[in-house]
Amino acid sequence: MRTYLDCLPCFLRQALETARRVTGDVEVHRGVLHRVASVIPDLPLGATPIELGREIHRVVRETTGVDDPYREVKRRDNDRVAACLPELRRAIASSQDRLLTALKLAAAGNAIDLAMAACVDLRGAIKGALEDGGEMTEYPLFLKQLDRGEDVLYLGDNAGEIVFDRLVVEQLVERGKRVTFAVRGRPILNDATVEDARYVGMDDLAEVLASGSDGPGTALSLCVPEFLDRFGHATVILSKGQGNFEGLSHEDAPLFFLLKVKCPVVAAELEMDIGTITLRSSGGLLERGKRGRPMTEPKDAGRGVQR
Amino acid sequence: MRTYLDCLPCFLRQALETARRVTGDVEVHRGVLHRVASVIPDLPLGATPIELGREIHRVVRETTGVDDPYREVKRRDNDRVAACLPELRRAIASSQDRLLTALKLAAAGNAIDLAMAACVDLRGAIKGALEDGGEMTEYPLFLKQLDRGEDVLYLGDNAGEIVFDRLVVEQLVERGKRVTFAVRGRPILNDATVEDARYVGMDDLAEVLASGSDGPGTALSLCVPEFLDRFGHATVILSKGQGNFEGLSHEDAPLFFLLKVKCPVVAAELEMDIGTITLRSSGGLLERGKRGRPMTEPKDAGRGVQR
Repeated sequence: MRTYLDCLPCFLRQALETARRVTGDVEVHRGVLHRVASVIPDLPLGATPIELGREIHRVVRETTGVDDPYREVKRRDNDRVAACLPELRRAIASSQDRLLTALKLAAAGNAIDLAMAACVDLRGAIKGALEDGGEMTEYPLFLKQLDRGEDVLYLGDNAGEIVFDRLVVEQLVERGKRVTFAVRGRPILNDATVEDARYVGMDDLAEVLASGSDGPGTALSLCVPEFLDRFGHATVILSKGQGNFEGLSHEDAPLFFLLKVKCPVVAAELEMDIGTITLRSSGGLLERGKRGRPMTEPKDAGRGVQR
Repeated sequence: MRTYLDCLPCFLRQALETARRVTGDVEVHRGVLHRVASVIPDLPLGATPIELGREIHRVVRETTGVDDPYREVKRRDNDRVAACLPELRRAIASSQDRLLTALKLAAAGNAIDLAMAACVDLRGAIKGALEDGGEMTEYPLFLKQLDRGEDVLYLGDNAGEIVFDRLVVEQLVERGKRVTFAVRGRPILNDATVEDARYVGMDDLAEVLASGSDGPGTALSLCVPEFLDRFGHATVILSKGQGNFEGLSHEDAPLFFLLKVKCPVVAAELEMDIGTITLRSSGGLLERGKRGRPMTEPKDAGRGVQR
């Protein structure tokens, strides 16, 4: 999807949040805000929020000198969710449709503020996800698409959440699928990297592949050839979270977006309320007229994003 | 209070919102965002958010060429609340402490999204304000301060809300007080001006005085001598809404802030939760160490704000 003007104040807010995580030095926080504000006029809005977010976080890294501000947070989140795995597995085992339940849990995992979460909070989130159910009307379409091949390309999102993804991958493997689990090409925000995937044992179940994207989501312009090749040949791609949606919603590919709607812009794109958990095929989105499709030749292309 | 770094993304968001109100032309929206982003590094954070907000809205006005984007909204809001006056008066008349009830209603009026409000919504807000009650523990202190003189300086906030303020002024007049009702010196956001005060008949009850402030709140640096003279000699000043709080919370004056806490920064300053309705004396705030006091000689003073 294209970047909305509403994303610009949000970039500034996110940069401040990241700078605060790195240091308590207000002068650094201020420096980050000023540098990010100064690049805003150069950002080509024809690009996706992922491509622009990548630029913003590059500026933050350069200003703070810290490469991976969320390193400890990611480790902690992975540990916290992993500690709840037996409980999560029981919820799945006792459900009528194990894959559907795993998908719902994984979408709920996308929404948990892990900074606050202990098993007891996860229990609430699990209960909510299973009872509410979300907008999963395209699940039968997903199953049909699954039957079309042996391979599944799974696009991971955040650390911690990746443990929930493991549960979905377990269900896919049980159905005889070969799963490739893609993660970011370098640390950005709390997004999962190869290190996180290995840490939670994803490599025991699936082939772990770095997409190459160094943005806060997957945008094809940022990915390495090996990933692009898998993407181009996939019969079904399960894309997790808002970041991957923002980078890929306009792509003509067998994509299924599993996410919780968390911001007004994504809510507008999906025509859904904030807070909704959903599994949406890209087909339906593309048919709706691609209104959020990034311009291929953005008339306002600046020098902010290197493609 | 001083400006927090958190205010900067919020300035950008507010500028976009205002630009959208003026025109549907995305290029203008974009131009506004770019110009506001470009002045951010020059903003002296030692100033109050009101002084900086004034600069932001000056940039918006200059970019859009529209002097009073909220003109129609203000008229509509004044009309909507005025239509509910009989109902509001009944709620006050049937209450145990009419002044306290009027104060609570006026604080609730500060929070209603009038863009959506009809009498039926106001009824809900009234009910909520009267039942919840808010943090009004300093009301006895306010009464005591009222007894110290015949005059009350009342600092108004938004259009629409000013009709609720009328109800408080009615109670003050009933208690034999002479009220000066201060409004902004020029249109900014949906803040009440002399035009609004006259439109809702405030001039029948009180002397209406333009403070001179052309920021989205009252900051003494922006006010005219006549207002400053009243302010300096007042025995009690009732200050309405977040904007006036942001501009005056550090001033050593007999101020009582009547507001609903709406943003994280004001919540931090008041050490209260977002959503709380309160009447707070400046005395207690000053005693708490003036931690949010703007620097008198901001070390980072730039050229953004002309004092």
